[in-house]
Amino acid sequence: MSSPSSAVSAAALPMSKLGQRAAPPAITGLMQAALETPGLLSLAAGFTDNVTLPVTAIQEALARLSAEAADHEFLQYGTNAGRPGLRAALAARVLAQDAGRGGEVPTAEAVAARAAQTFVTNGSQQALYLAVQTLCEPGDIVLVDRPSYFVFLELLRGLGVEARSMPVDADGRLDGAALAALLRRLRESGERARLKAVYFVSWFSNPSGRTLDAAERRALAAVLRAEDCVVPVIEDAAYRELGFEPGAASAQPGILGDPSWDGFPRLYTSTLTKPFATGLKVGYGMCDHAAWRSAMLHVKGHHDFGTGNFAQALLERAILDGAYEAQLETLRKAYREKRDALHAALEAGGLAGLGWRWRVPQGGLYLWLEGPEGLDTGSDSAFCRACLREGVLHVPGALCHGDAPAHNTVRLSYGVLAPDALAEAGARFCRAAKACAKGIA
Amino acid sequence: MSSPSSAVSAAALPMSKLGQRAAPPAITGLMQAALETPGLLSLAAGFTDNVTLPVTAIQEALARLSAEAADHEFLQYGTNAGRPGLRAALAARVLAQDAGRGGEVPTAEAVAARAAQTFVTNGSQQALYLAVQTLCEPGDIVLVDRPSYFVFLELLRGLGVEARSMPVDADGRLDGAALAALLRRLRESGERARLKAVYFVSWFSNPSGRTLDAAERRALAAVLRAEDCVVPVIEDAAYRELGFEPGAASAQPGILGDPSWDGFPRLYTSTLTKPFATGLKVGYGMCDHAAWRSAMLHVKGHHDFGTGNFAQALLERAILDGAYEAQLETLRKAYREKRDALHAALEAGGLAGLGWRWRVPQGGLYLWLEGPEGLDTGSDSAFCRACLREGVLHVPGALCHGDAPAHNTVRLSYGVLAPDALAEAGARFCRAAKACAKGIA
Repeated sequence: MSSPSSAVSAAALPMSKLGQRAAPPAITGLMQAALETPGLLSLAAGFTDNVTLPVTAIQEALARLSAEAADHEFLQYGTNAGRPGLRAALAARVLAQDAGRGGEVPTAEAVAARAAQTFVTNGSQQALYLAVQTLCEPGDIVLVDRPSYFVFLELLRGLGVEARSMPVDADGRLDGAALAALLRRLRESGERARLKAVYFVSWFSNPSGRTLDAAERRALAAVLRAEDCVVPVIEDAAYRELGFEPGAASAQPGILGDPSWDGFPRLYTSTLTKPFATGLKVGYGMCDHAAWRSAMLHVKGHHDFGTGNFAQALLERAILDGAYEAQLETLRKAYREKRDALHAALEAGGLAGLGWRWRVPQGGLYLWLEGPEGLDTGSDSAFCRACLREGVLHVPGALCHGDAPAHNTVRLSYGVLAPDALAEAGARFCRAAKACAKGIA
Repeated sequence: MSSPSSAVSAAALPMSKLGQRAAPPAITGLMQAALETPGLLSLAAGFTDNVTLPVTAIQEALARLSAEAADHEFLQYGTNAGRPGLRAALAARVLAQDAGRGGEVPTAEAVAARAAQTFVTNGSQQALYLAVQTLCEPGDIVLVDRPSYFVFLELLRGLGVEARSMPVDADGRLDGAALAALLRRLRESGERARLKAVYFVSWFSNPSGRTLDAAERRALAAVLRAEDCVVPVIEDAAYRELGFEPGAASAQPGILGDPSWDGFPRLYTSTLTKPFATGLKVGYGMCDHAAWRSAMLHVKGHHDFGTGNFAQALLERAILDGAYEAQLETLRKAYREKRDALHAALEAGGLAGLGWRWRVPQGGLYLWLEGPEGLDTGSDSAFCRACLREGVLHVPGALCHGDAPAHNTVRLSYGVLAPDALAEAGARFCRAAKACAKGIA
C-alpha cells in the first residue's frame, strides 16, 4: 500500500484561474482564534439555536412519509428542479406573503405559474452561486447593499467578480441621489458594460438587521431604471420569515410581487434552512426570466443534478402539515428573547456612552454596531485582542463591505448562545470596548 | 400585484459564456419521449430500485440520533468539509477495501490521515464538478475512458472543456500503445499544455459495466508517466460497492492505495447515494494533493458551505450500526437478479443472432451493448423509433463518448424495473432490433 506522499502535496499543480483565486474564508482566522481560546463566547457564528431544533417534527414527517408513500419515492432520486409538491407549496407561500396581510388567496393558476419559476437548491447559497455563474465573467461588477452578506461577497471574489457598494446615508438608508451619481460615474468610466447584477438582502439583513422599506425599494428600482441599468436583480430573502412581529414577512412584497421591478430580470432567493432546521440545507430560487432560469437549472444539473430529495420531502410534509409554521413561531419567540438579552447587556454595559451606536433589529439573527470613529475592529486589531482577552468573539464589520469598508463596524449574532450566555457575552464585549476607549488595550 | 411579464422572459439577457453554454441534458429528448409514450418501459433511467429503499434503516438511524444527541446537532449546520465522524468512517472503509481481502485493519493514524483528505459532497457529482472547476479553463482537455459517464461529459461541456477518449481494443480494454500514440500527437500538435486531467470509472462502469483490471490500471499509469503526462487523475468509484461477488470491491486497490499512481495528484470520488438511498444525495472526494484539495474545498464553500448535515448524520449512523452494509447485501442480490432477468431476455430474444454483442456485468446497474456495424441507435434513428413503437427506451451509446462516438452502442439500465418488467422490456428491445435487422423499421 502506498502512503500519501508529501512530495505530491508539495508539487505545484497548474490550476485554473478559479482554482488559483480560491482562498480560505475571511473568518478562518476568527474560527482558529475561537478554537484556541477556551471559554470563549462566540457572537460571530451564523449558526442557529440548537435547543429549538425540530426533532419531533422531523420524526413525524418521516413517519407520515413512510406510511403514505408506498413506493418510498422520498428516498429515491428527485428531479433537477426539485419536488413539484414542495415547489408548489413554496409558490403559494411567497405569493401569499407578497399579497400582504388580508390579501386574497393566490389562484391555482398563479401558484402553478410561480412553481414553474421555482427551483430547489442546496441552501439559498447555491442559487446565488448559479446566478452569478450564469451572468458574470471575471472582472464584471455586481452592485451590493452596504453592508452586505459576507459569504456572497466571498462567492463573488471566488468567481473573480467585483462588488460595488450602493451608497447609504448616516442611518443606513439607501441614498438614491448618491446611487445615481455612482451609476453615472460607471458610465463615464466605461465600466457600465461590466455591471451585470444588483444584489440585496431585503428583510432583517445579514449583517445589518435592517429591512429595506417600501420607499427605499421603489427608489432603488427607479434610479436603476432612470440610469439605464435595468440589469438582473437578485433579492435575498433568507430572513424574511424570521421577523418578530406577526405579519412582518408580508409588510411589503418581494421583487416578484412589486410592479416597481417589472421589466427587470428578477431572481428571488430564500431558504427553508434557517427558519426550520439548518441541517436540512434546502433553499430555493424563483426567477421570472426564462432564459436565465434555464441556464441556472442546466448548470445545477452539472453541479449535482438535484438537491437531496429526502430533505425536500421532509420539508414539503412539514409545510403541508403546519409543522413548519409552528416551528417558525417557536423560533421567532426564541430569537426575540435572545435579541433582548444581547441588547440589554450592551445597554447595561454602557456601550452607547462609549460612542457606539446600534439599531435594535426587528427580526433575523444579527445586531449591527458602529463603533467610535477611527476604531478598527479587524481580526488583527487591538480591539479584537481586547475581545479575545475578555473571551468574546465578533465578526469585523469590514468583511461585510463590497468596497470602502467601514472598519469601525461589528456584526454580532445572537443565534446560537442561550440568553444568559448572551448577557455574559454582551458584558464582555462592553468591557473590551471600555478597555479600548481608555487606550489600554 | 404584478404578473410575471412575458416581455421579461423574452428579453435578451447578456449571460456569461458559461451561462450561454448551458444546454439541456442530452437525454432531454428521451425523457420527453418517455412522457409521451404510455406504457413505455424505460431501460434508460439511471435511477435505483424503489422496493429495496431502506425506510426502516433510516427510521432507526433517526431514532438513535434523536436519543443520543442531546443538543440535536444532527439538525444543525455542519462544516464545509463534512462530518468528522462520517469522514473517518469513509476513510476506514476505503482503506480496508484498498488493502484487499484479508488485509490488515488500517491503523488509527492511517484513518486520520485519509479522513483529512476526505470531503463530503452533494453526491459524487459535485466532487467531479469541483475537480474540473479548479483545474480547467475553457478549451482545456480531459482524457476520459471509452465509453464514459455521460453526465461527466456534459459537465465538461458546460465548463467549456474538451473530452478525449482513451483508446480501447475490440474487447473494450485500454490500449496502451494507442494511448501513447495519442499523447504523442497531443504533444506534437501543441495541445499537451491543455491536457489537465484523466478521468475513469474503475468498477462496474457507468455505462460499460466493465471493471478496469490491475494490468490495465498499471499500464495506464505507466503510459501517462512515460509520456510525461503526470497530470491529476480522477477515479470515479461510484459503483465499487455494487459488485455481485463478495469482496469484489477489494479485488484491487483504488488509485490512492496503488503505488503505480504515486506522484500523480489523485482524486478518488465515490458515493453513498447509489449503494444506500439515492434520496440522501451524499458523495465524497478523497484527494492527496493539499493545494488542489484546498482549492476544491474553498470553492465548495462558495457553492453551498457544506452538504446537508442531517443526511450525513443518518449515513454515519447507518455505517457505524451496520445498516449500510446490510443494505448493500440486499441491493447486490436485487441487482444481480435484475441483471439476470434482462440478460436472459436478451438471450431468449435472439439478440446475439442479430449481430449484437454484450458483456454480462459483474456489478453495477448497466448493460452495455454493441449493435451491428452501421446501426445508429441515436434518438432520431429508425432504431430508436422502432424501440418506441415496441414501448421500450434505451440510452444511445453515442452520448457516452468523449469523441468519435460509436453510434451502434446502447446503454441499458436494470436499476429501476422489477425482474418481470425487465424480461418484458428485454423482449421488446429484441423485437425492435429484429424489425431493424429486417429493414422494415
